[in-house]
Amino acid sequence: MTAPPSAASLPVAPLSDVLAEVDSALPAALDRLFALLRIPSVSAQPAHAADCVRAAEWCRDDLRSLGFSAALRPVEGGPPAVVGHLDAPPGHTGPHILFYGHYDVQPAEPFDLWTSPPFDPQLIDGPRGKRIVARGAVDDKGQAMMFLEAMRAWKRVTGTIPARVTVLLEGEEEVGSPHLDPFLRAHRADLAADIALISDTGMWDIDTPALTTRLRGMAYTEVLLHGAARDLHSGMYGGSALNAVNALTRILGGLHDEDGRVQVPGFYDNVRDVPEALATEWQALGFDEKAYLADIGLAVPVGERGVPALQRLWSRPTADINGIWGGYAGAGAKTVIAAEAGAKVSFRLVPGQDPARIIDGFRRFVEERLPQGARSEVRALASSPAIVVSEDSRFVRAGLAALADEFGKPAKLIGCGASIPVVESLKRELGIDSLLMGFGLDDDQPHSPNEKFELACFHHGIRSHARLLAKLAGE
Amino acid sequence: MTAPPSAASLPVAPLSDVLAEVDSALPAALDRLFALLRIPSVSAQPAHAADCVRAAEWCRDDLRSLGFSAALRPVEGGPPAVVGHLDAPPGHTGPHILFYGHYDVQPAEPFDLWTSPPFDPQLIDGPRGKRIVARGAVDDKGQAMMFLEAMRAWKRVTGTIPARVTVLLEGEEEVGSPHLDPFLRAHRADLAADIALISDTGMWDIDTPALTTRLRGMAYTEVLLHGAARDLHSGMYGGSALNAVNALTRILGGLHDEDGRVQVPGFYDNVRDVPEALATEWQALGFDEKAYLADIGLAVPVGERGVPALQRLWSRPTADINGIWGGYAGAGAKTVIAAEAGAKVSFRLVPGQDPARIIDGFRRFVEERLPQGARSEVRALASSPAIVVSEDSRFVRAGLAALADEFGKPAKLIGCGASIPVVESLKRELGIDSLLMGFGLDDDQPHSPNEKFELACFHHGIRSHARLLAKLAGE
Repeated sequence: MTAPPSAASLPVAPLSDVLAEVDSALPAALDRLFALLRIPSVSAQPAHAADCVRAAEWCRDDLRSLGFSAALRPVEGGPPAVVGHLDAPPGHTGPHILFYGHYDVQPAEPFDLWTSPPFDPQLIDGPRGKRIVARGAVDDKGQAMMFLEAMRAWKRVTGTIPARVTVLLEGEEEVGSPHLDPFLRAHRADLAADIALISDTGMWDIDTPALTTRLRGMAYTEVLLHGAARDLHSGMYGGSALNAVNALTRILGGLHDEDGRVQVPGFYDNVRDVPEALATEWQALGFDEKAYLADIGLAVPVGERGVPALQRLWSRPTADINGIWGGYAGAGAKTVIAAEAGAKVSFRLVPGQDPARIIDGFRRFVEERLPQGARSEVRALASSPAIVVSEDSRFVRAGLAALADEFGKPAKLIGCGASIPVVESLKRELGIDSLLMGFGLDDDQPHSPNEKFELACFHHGIRSHARLLAKLAGE
Repeated sequence: MTAPPSAASLPVAPLSDVLAEVDSALPAALDRLFALLRIPSVSAQPAHAADCVRAAEWCRDDLRSLGFSAALRPVEGGPPAVVGHLDAPPGHTGPHILFYGHYDVQPAEPFDLWTSPPFDPQLIDGPRGKRIVARGAVDDKGQAMMFLEAMRAWKRVTGTIPARVTVLLEGEEEVGSPHLDPFLRAHRADLAADIALISDTGMWDIDTPALTTRLRGMAYTEVLLHGAARDLHSGMYGGSALNAVNALTRILGGLHDEDGRVQVPGFYDNVRDVPEALATEWQALGFDEKAYLADIGLAVPVGERGVPALQRLWSRPTADINGIWGGYAGAGAKTVIAAEAGAKVSFRLVPGQDPARIIDGFRRFVEERLPQGARSEVRALASSPAIVVSEDSRFVRAGLAALADEFGKPAKLIGCGASIPVVESLKRELGIDSLLMGFGLDDDQPHSPNEKFELACFHHGIRSHARLLAKLAGE
């Protein structure tokens, strides 16, 4: 016996018409995305504060054009969030969707490695068709716009959008969303929904869609090491005076042991092996680590010895020095002994690790290795625990079905090495699970020069969101 | 029996009149020095190339005002040198003096740590009287001008300067004098002299003059480490991709062992202990290491365990990271894995160490520790061997006598932890020994913010040079 088609309480959507509208409106959708990409909304850099506001206003206006009641909401200590509401059409019984995205982008430095200016988006030919090149192309402006464009197509074709939707676009994701939790708490009623929908993750490959159910967490710190009271001449003081760069380098040089294991005390407490079944499923994905590394000019992996590649990326914690500075870095030779040195050190976390305890552990790691006379500060800049999204929900099932329809093949359930702290925040503050349906590719270079987003992914993404709206409306 | 006064072949100089002229002309001498200090002749920074030429022209003009025939001499690849000649007065039989100084200065960064702008010289009250505060105050503009002012006083009082003098002022000392050797070779005849006189060293303390007979050498390198083909997102690649900052930090973190000994292969080959007698003499100086360290905000020395303080500074080699960079050093959190990282690493050398071999050893040190997939470059930016000046010469005796007369107490023979590569160059290229009579103090901060030169030292320095001219003329 076959189940009857589910009874929709609204007029059954002419999905094929909507998809055709997506296809024909693609050039206009690109124009809109490019306008947003031209705004250098770099949240990490105070000089771009006004640009962040401009980007927020642009998003607000675009939501209004879709019929949303939308406004900027001040965020204590950061750029504003954009919040928009759209009532469901009469008779709609589908879930209330909270779509989350972020309009801020990573810093674009170093500029000279870009083949085109980072904030002058280009549509260029690539090996897999056209691609969009700009800072924010995939992370996250391009991905956020896919959902808006899907709604726009529905509205054009049917005059309405078949869902009750709240949109939240924040402006601090790239600096770790430091003010998001209090914002969510303060707007709990306003942001209430049944499911959060997020497009800030990746596909398995350009032909194979995926939902992401595991995300690594993050603990991001800045460590400062203070030595002498001032910079010194290395001739007058070399061999007797503490050199802050020497000291910091010596301490951080011991972050890993010979087997690539992180030496922060307690780092692996409560870290569990990934379940056998999932490990097997991941193994079956046939991840080509050689190609993955070759793409970035490498041949051998670093990291924990003896751990399979996808586990190293999705279910094992890491430590990376994201930046280091101290002394003279200009042209020529300056014989200085620096009074101060610093580094950004971050940890990718997995289930079982508490970011606060990891940061405490790192602080202890530094302090225990401080030479006499040195003083250290370890500040937490961002932190979020790892996430495991339940794979057994109607939303995940709807997502898998929409993707399978669009791509003509089953979607994969995958992990992601990066953190999306908002997923944890939405669960904790609002009690909402997230559906992570993203269309990025491994080589999109989201935090590097020449960030790109394949046009095919952008296009499939809009169509998939249009299908997802139908699936959810039709439940 | 007392030795008779030495018979001078020119009219015996009315030294007391000359010293009185030095005293009364001190304000004018300061005005001249300040004019020179206002020119930001930073040789390490290409943006200041024109300022270096301006400073050279200023020095040339000042030498001309003393009766020198002086000109800028082009230096292949660098700012010009200033060379001036002054014939001896008729009947003069004293030695031909080559006075060497440098008109270039260290970069002034970080500017915000200066209490006054580095190129706006100030005469301010300090605990030991007035002091001159500016980049270059002591290193070396202030010290070079002492000799010129001494000559000026002689000329004012007697109408002539009692010496045959060549002056060479170079503009690349602070970047390791990379073009000095070929310049000296090309101008060997023009720069011939009996003794080189240099004021770029220090006194023992503000009351105790000194001649410096030992200088450490230097090998200054820049190391670049290349990892992946581009900067990466630490979420997508953390735990699998080589992090250039991690790798460089790990390598440089092993520069010293637990006992402070440098781990570069062959580093201590041919390094000899300082002779017992000299070690004893240094011990007798009563160096107050506690005060020396307290002055820079430290309490305990770093460096080789179990080595006496002055030996650590004057006769033991060292390694210092003078600068390090890589990844993101801006505000906030950027989760990047850097493709490249770099550092400036320099070594202070002692007799027996060959700079080229030390640099080769360091290159090997880095290569042997490179993780798979990384690539390194080690470039030599500057190098000079250590120097031991003969303590048994008529010039050293004349210097000791001039200083003893000026200060009313014996001068010390000391070492210096810093290198003055020109001393080696003058010996090698021109066959000339150097007399190192300097008036800096340990707390002058020559390469740091708020570089200063005590007015008392400047004043004593001019008078001592005036006396030295008399001693040398009277031989």
